[in-house]
Amino acid sequence: MLKRGDSLKKETVFERFGGKGELQITHFLNVDEFNGKGRLFARNILLPGASLGLHEHVGDFETYVILSGEGLLNDNGEQKPVKPGDVIITRSGEKHSLENTGSQNLEFLALVLFD
Amino acid sequence: MLKRGDSLKKETVFERFGGKGELQITHFLNVDEFNGKGRLFARNILLPGASLGLHEHVGDFETYVILSGEGLLNDNGEQKPVKPGDVIITRSGEKHSLENTGSQNLEFLALVLFD
Repeated sequence: MLKRGDSLKKETVFERFGGKGELQITHFLNVDEFNGKGRLFARNILLPGASLGLHEHVGDFETYVILSGEGLLNDNGEQKPVKPGDVIITRSGEKHSLENTGSQNLEFLALVLFD
Repeated sequence: MLKRGDSLKKETVFERFGGKGELQITHFLNVDEFNGKGRLFARNILLPGASLGLHEHVGDFETYVILSGEGLLNDNGEQKPVKPGDVIITRSGEKHSLENTGSQNLEFLALVLFD
């Protein structure tokens, strides 16, 4: 099945998980397309200065892949700068946050699979 | 857990599934990092003129996301041109192939989850 890019579900969310500013989400898969294996496969954009607040994963795990821009990751308590190509895995019981610390958009993939 | 981009597993494969030319694969997740939910989450590059041959998925399903370039998709028997932003879902029991028909690299994400 082919889904054209302009037909994908898009969302704009503000202050996600208690973070700052604007997050844009383009969903590659809808929840009913995961065969029960997960709930999110998307391209995310954090605008300059925006962030996803610190949050814990319970019963699932998330993979981020940085595509473009510069960010600061909280990787279960440790602050780490991240750049394009980096991959972050946050397991069930762990926490993460991500902030756009650059002057351009911070683009990253997000994949959430169930435990 | 943070995996830096230069530490990711990379492969170069030729004539994949009976296709043509060179395919470059960068693995975001290794098989043991899927918690049994899947087996591939990667960025793929087909060089100009290269292709993935037609193959069937059995017991799993694959999502492609076109990132850059131009391609020709065989979507379970139907030929369709694809472009950046397009998403292709190939379910268990279905077949697909993908050919780079442009002059630039054809870059795409691939996610294989089990049924």
